[in-house]
This record gives sequence, C-alpha cells and structure tokens, in this order.
Amino acid sequence: MQIPQPYLLFLGDVTDPLSAKTARGIHAWRPETCVGQMHLEGCQVSLGLPELTPAQAKDQGAKTFVLGTANAGGYIPEHWMTVIKDAIEAGLNIASGLHQKLVDVPELVALAKQHDVALFDVRHHQPALKVGSGLPRSGKRVLTVGTDCAVGKMYTSLALEAAMQKLGMKAEFRATGQTGILVAGAGIPIDAVVSDFISGAAEWISPANDADHWDVIEGQGSLFHPSYAGVSLGLLHGSQPDYLVMCHEMGRPHTRHLPHHPLVEMEDCVYLNLYNARLTNPNVQLAGISVNTSNYPEEEAKAYLAELTEKFQVPATDSVRFGIDAIAEFLLHQVN
Amino acid sequence: MQIPQPYLLFLGDVTDPLSAKTARGIHAWRPETCVGQMHLEGCQVSLGLPELTPAQAKDQGAKTFVLGTANAGGYIPEHWMTVIKDAIEAGLNIASGLHQKLVDVPELVALAKQHDVALFDVRHHQPALKVGSGLPRSGKRVLTVGTDCAVGKMYTSLALEAAMQKLGMKAEFRATGQTGILVAGAGIPIDAVVSDFISGAAEWISPANDADHWDVIEGQGSLFHPSYAGVSLGLLHGSQPDYLVMCHEMGRPHTRHLPHHPLVEMEDCVYLNLYNARLTNPNVQLAGISVNTSNYPEEEAKAYLAELTEKFQVPATDSVRFGIDAIAEFLLHQVN
Repeated sequence: MQIPQPYLLFLGDVTDPLSAKTARGIHAWRPETCVGQMHLEGCQVSLGLPELTPAQAKDQGAKTFVLGTANAGGYIPEHWMTVIKDAIEAGLNIASGLHQKLVDVPELVALAKQHDVALFDVRHHQPALKVGSGLPRSGKRVLTVGTDCAVGKMYTSLALEAAMQKLGMKAEFRATGQTGILVAGAGIPIDAVVSDFISGAAEWISPANDADHWDVIEGQGSLFHPSYAGVSLGLLHGSQPDYLVMCHEMGRPHTRHLPHHPLVEMEDCVYLNLYNARLTNPNVQLAGISVNTSNYPEEEAKAYLAELTEKFQVPATDSVRFGIDAIAEFLLHQVN
Repeated sequence: MQIPQPYLLFLGDVTDPLSAKTARGIHAWRPETCVGQMHLEGCQVSLGLPELTPAQAKDQGAKTFVLGTANAGGYIPEHWMTVIKDAIEAGLNIASGLHQKLVDVPELVALAKQHDVALFDVRHHQPALKVGSGLPRSGKRVLTVGTDCAVGKMYTSLALEAAMQKLGMKAEFRATGQTGILVAGAGIPIDAVVSDFISGAAEWISPANDADHWDVIEGQGSLFHPSYAGVSLGLLHGSQPDYLVMCHEMGRPHTRHLPHHPLVEMEDCVYLNLYNARLTNPNVQLAGISVNTSNYPEEEAKAYLAELTEKFQVPATDSVRFGIDAIAEFLLHQVN
C-alpha cells in the first residue's frame, strides 16, 4: 500500500480542532504533500492552506483526497458522500481513516473503478502477512515505546526522523497507526492486523536495509496497558530495535481510560521493554526519554527532565518544548 | 457462538493420524459428544466410533457435522463438498477448523439457509469484541502458559479441568484454539482476533463468576516466542489469572520452527509470566508445572520433575504419564 501524494485535505464540518488531528498531523509533518484544504459550511477549523475544490486540486497536481477528520462513530456521514463522489469524479484517489470502510460502500467502489482511482482504508489492513520470524536483519532501528497510550510516540518518531536527517543520518519514519500512515503514505495499522501477525507486520514495515540506514518506528500502546499490551509486545519483538526511546506524559496519574490502573513507574517500564526487546535483539539499549511536560511550568519540567537524564544516563527532553536533537545526537555518537 | 452437540466426526480421507488430531481430541476429551464417525475411501484413521452417514447420525441425535481433520493448505477439497452438502441436507450444522471459511462458499451458505442449519468456522471470529478493561472480576481463574508453542497447553487445561472436577471443584475449560473450541462447543480463536481485542477476547471467554467457580483457560504461544508473544501477553492480561500452570517439553532445544532461537530457561519464563500477570491480578501465583517428558526414560523424567518441584516449590508432573492430580490438589488446598 502506497498512497499517492500530494493530498487535498478534507476537513468536513468539524468544529473541534482535536477532531482534525489527522489533517493537522499531515500538514505539520509533510506540508509539501498538502496541495490544499476543503471544508464544508460550518467547519471552524483551518490549516491555512488554499481552499480548493477536488477539480482545482487535481489541476494543481493533487493525487489523493484525504478524509482527515474523525466524526462520532467513525461512519461516513451521508452528506459527505456527494463530496467524496465529486473527488472520485475529479480523478482523485480517496484515503480514509474512518472505521467504516470505503470499500464497503458499493456505490464508491463502482465509481472508483469507473474512474480508475483507488480507495485506501488506512485503519484496516488487507494484504496477507507472514508470521514474524525473529531472524536478525541488517540496518539500524529505533522504536518509540511508552508508559501509556497517547504519550506522543508518533510525534516523537517524526521529530526524531527530522532531527536525525538534519544530522545527515539516513532516517526513515515507519508508520503503524492511521495518522502516521497518511503522513508517510505507507505503513500498517498494527492494531488492526490479526493477532497472529503482529510481529510479522512489524518485520514487514521495517525490512532489512543498509547498515547505516535507520528506521524510526512508530510505537503503539504500552506493555503496561491491560487493553493493548499484546500489540506493544508484538511490535517490540518484530521491530527488533537497536534503540528504544521511552515516551511519557509528566504527571499523568493513571493509565488512559482506566482510572483503576495507576501509571507504571518509568523505571519498571524501561526495564520490561528492554528485557522483552532482547528476545530479538540482545544489544538493544535505551537512547532517550521523550516527555510531554505541557501541564507543568518550564522550571519544573526542566528539573524533572534533568532527574530522568541523571537516573537513566540518556537524554531526556520534551520534544515539543525543547526539541529532540539531544536524542538524535546520542544515536549518532553511539555508532561513530 | 455455541456449537450444538453431539457431533458426527468427519475424518475425510486422511492417512496420517496427526492430521486427525482435532477429531481425536474431541473424542478423547468429550466422548459423550461423539455420536459417530464418517470416513471416505482411503482413510486409514479410525476413532473406533460407529461409522454413520449424516442421515443416520441425525436419527441418533447428532446436531453438528465436524470437519475434524486438517488437509494441506487448509482448503475444502472439492470431493468433500458432496459430503458436506449431504450433511446439510440431513439437517446437521457444519463446524470446520479449516482456514478456508465455509461462509465464503456461497453454495454452502445458500444450502444451509434453505435447511435452517448453521455454519461454524472455528478458526475465525466474527462477533464484535470490546477492548480489554483490566477491571477485577469475581471467580477464580487458572491459565496454562508455556515455554513455547505446542507444549501441551490444551491437553494440560483439559486434564486439569477433569482432575479438579474429580475433587468436587467447579472447574470449566475455556477454549482459545480451534480444537479446544470444538471440544468445548464454544470459545474464541484468540490468534484470529484483531490485535486490539486480544485481552478483550480473553475477558469475554472467562467472565465474572461465582467465588468458588474456576475457569481453566487454554493458553496459546509463549511470551518468548518472537512470532506469537503478543497473543500470549494479551491472553495473560485478559485472563486475569489467579494461578498459572507452566507447560514445557523436556529437552526441547529451540523455539518451535525457529532453530536460531534457543528455548528460554524455565526460570525466566516463570518470572516473566508472573511479572506481566501482576498487571491485572497482583495476587497471581504459580500452581504447577506440566511437562511432556515422552522423549526420556521414566527415571530421567522423574528426576527432572523432582528437580523442578524442588526449585519452584509447586507440583511438577507429566500429565499424560503421571496424571495432573497433584496440581489440582495444590489448587484445592490454596483456597481451603
């Protein structure tokens, strides 16, 4: 699956900036892939891109129309159908991060066939996968892991890719979630594969490569999240990481959506991730800690990060607030 | 999903007893659910059951025709179709452990509808699941775990259920694989669910129950198998076990199908399973070790089991050779 870029980003009629986080992520990380945006009446979110119709976007080189906002229930609202059909008729592929599959709407399938365009359901994974082999492979890999869900693993991975490239390293982001897949134009939604194939999917997205090539793999969930830890473990084994970057939110009291589960201690989380990762890469090491400190004043955040750096002997940073160059440099020095 | 019992076991035309292991497992553990067997010309396997046609079996109370043998590729051979159609026309439901789904054959779907019978694809899971909650629930649960795949987790679970029932305990086998599901008539093929729902599926098959009720949950894979560990971890978290029984094959040199992966040390495997299980049940304990010693002489086997008993301070046994009563009694005494 390679989603043709650049994109026309469809914002629908969302009024809440959070609902547009996919579109915003694509625009933030790959502005060069965004030809324009399109919204419906009532939409209160803008990315500041030129407002284009599908036909105008096509004229300007757009290849895919991206449904870049979530809506309650994950269904395609009836009143979006006209716009999607317009886009197909204008010759654009459609990519959707909604739960409801485009390919389950016979009308869209027929129209897409007629206009020779593709439908991409990035929350779902169709192609057959192999089970993981655990066989050592060439190239370097760094995986983001976390104390919980939603602690910035995708952001950290993308920021690290950029910082490593700035240092002249051959770094490539590997996507495992829907927004990441739209940003990269490729990847596997790892939580949507059949459970037998989790590590196989991770091996597939980060194949053998040149010795000086780095895959920066987007992590998912946490080994300490009772709902999703299986996904995290399969991803950890299949990624065969040389380095881990631990992601965390400062002060988060409990595991996301589970108030009865206090958040794991960072120490235990680092330990268990390294312990498990050794199964497929005995040389795995921690390379850094990436913390969302946004709920704390700068001085407190800095003190906390200094404490983590001291304790784990790797750079700890808030990649939004203070950048992630320190972790990229750490990786550069490890291999030189 | 509840598969109506009793069964007519279809043996096809297999010549290799191993290929009939599903049928043999059902017959071994639930002989009362087997009205008869049916084979095609050339079949060299027999369970010693009366040979019946679908119509005869129906007359004798059979409710479901079970495709109880595997064949290369997992497809339904063309020459089995006539027999399957006969069975549907005789008014039997069909249950299959093949990779190819019965419900993907329009001819069978139509015929089943016409005769008001159901098609069960036990390798696949259709109903919607919820993600795991990790919330504590009532009842007692024991989960079989292992140093590897194919070390006797299903056998151990079924043997333990029988031994516990013999001691008057309310024990119930919970199936997570295809043979287990056919034996129990219900369950979820845990390696076939979407990875987001592994622990949710485990919660679903072993719901809250009476304080003195025991679910004996069939484990899958191993935390140390690089292909399947994600499944094992989700199952461990979702099962919320009070007790673990570690399964192992004496002398196995490396992880199944992965000659480059030496088998984990028992000590490390017990440790990591308990460590992870504590996430959803802080009181989890090891209750016993179940070892396949069949490749060793009896004296060597006994010496090895004695060593394990001494080291882990729980009963270690070969449940085929020496029975599993010791582990059932250990569990009985833990709660009394």
